[in-house]
Amino acid sequence: MQIKSAHEVEAKVVEMEGASGTTMRLLIGPGDGAPNFNMRLFEIAPGGHTPLHSHPWEHEVYVLSGQGAVRTPAAEKAVSGTDCVFIPPGEQHQFANTGRQPLRFLCLVPRDSG
Amino acid sequence: MQIKSAHEVEAKVVEMEGASGTTMRLLIGPGDGAPNFNMRLFEIAPGGHTPLHSHPWEHEVYVLSGQGAVRTPAAEKAVSGTDCVFIPPGEQHQFANTGRQPLRFLCLVPRDSG
Repeated sequence: MQIKSAHEVEAKVVEMEGASGTTMRLLIGPGDGAPNFNMRLFEIAPGGHTPLHSHPWEHEVYVLSGQGAVRTPAAEKAVSGTDCVFIPPGEQHQFANTGRQPLRFLCLVPRDSG
Repeated sequence: MQIKSAHEVEAKVVEMEGASGTTMRLLIGPGDGAPNFNMRLFEIAPGGHTPLHSHPWEHEVYVLSGQGAVRTPAAEKAVSGTDCVFIPPGEQHQFANTGRQPLRFLCLVPRDSG
């Protein structure tokens, strides 16, 4: 068993083109011995967003706090705490903070993604 | 994209031998098209616990709220909101509510776990 507080994990700025005001903490990943998937915690500042992009792996997301929007070619939908979001492989998507507080969410991906 | 509130998902009582006061919501799984891993939300009532057991797959856990303990043969450790826990494949483990409020946590497992 390994236990850590999310606050102990270094928050790295997401430098990817198209990202703004976004940090990521790798909570559980290969360094912990996780064999199949990675748990990451994202925090987006008010006005910030992740890139509008697509990739061949899925996202499983749980919104912890804040107000945001998830944008795909088909729709823009509001999300807030306790919402869970499934983005299937290959679907273009973007997460944006539409509120006044940080938007915090877990986003899990397969181990061998990106 | 699929979005749902965790509250919309049916909470099923965990009937497994050794479980007490525990419900599980399958937030994201095969029915959503999730190809690799499942997101579940557990809620354990005060005094309740999951079975003390082991299995060949891992757990990736994020504690949302409440006070609890994670027990393994090596240790018993306290957990609360923002703690994340990795239980490797094959390690015996049990989650227990040691507080006065519900203990709520996400627990993700590979898709083909039992």
